[in-house]
Amino acid sequence: MQGLHLTADLSGCAEALPLMRDPQALRNVCLLAVAAAQLSAVAELFHRFPAPGGVTGVVLLAESHLAVHTWPELGAVTLDVYVCNLGRDNSPAAQALIDALVLAFEPERVEQHRVHRGKGG
Amino acid sequence: MQGLHLTADLSGCAEALPLMRDPQALRNVCLLAVAAAQLSAVAELFHRFPAPGGVTGVVLLAESHLAVHTWPELGAVTLDVYVCNLGRDNSPAAQALIDALVLAFEPERVEQHRVHRGKGG
Repeated sequence: MQGLHLTADLSGCAEALPLMRDPQALRNVCLLAVAAAQLSAVAELFHRFPAPGGVTGVVLLAESHLAVHTWPELGAVTLDVYVCNLGRDNSPAAQALIDALVLAFEPERVEQHRVHRGKGG
Repeated sequence: MQGLHLTADLSGCAEALPLMRDPQALRNVCLLAVAAAQLSAVAELFHRFPAPGGVTGVVLLAESHLAVHTWPELGAVTLDVYVCNLGRDNSPAAQALIDALVLAFEPERVEQHRVHRGKGG
């Protein structure tokens, strides 16, 4: 399955940002960003950890998935956007989605990786 | 957040394998493999798509996440295991988890990537 996997590892995010601790706030932003990128959410799951209270969220997409992990006490966030390119090239949408989420967390530093998956077929 | 992200893109999996279409069968194998790797599942979500009936499953881990997508009609499966290494090195557990899942799908071919994330801190 040919696809594109984008990762972004953020640091220097403000601990007080609602997205860092509030599953509902994070869910709203994720679903908005998915819709804006014209990707299709089919299900989602957001989980808040006990103190210090990070959040993990995943949105299952018709095109594959989005995953977010936050560590508010460290100002750290990781983002994953994976899209398969079955029928159409979803790469521009994947890039738009991760760019929007990076912006939403206002990080001081971002480390990104871009993995072209399933080149063999 | 320093961590390890492993991907495996499988092809040549048997369409008739229950794991390819049955969310409950896939869930059972995923949770068993997570436990065997001594990782900690905190929540999970499995979604079956309409015909041709692929499944997407995610297991949220205390250590980050596992994600699986199947395309039975193509004999294709993609696996993601992402672990952060906060407090201990979870890399051997991540490798054990993805190895167990690759074996479970009995693929003809496997393409793997290994991404060391968050090297900046």
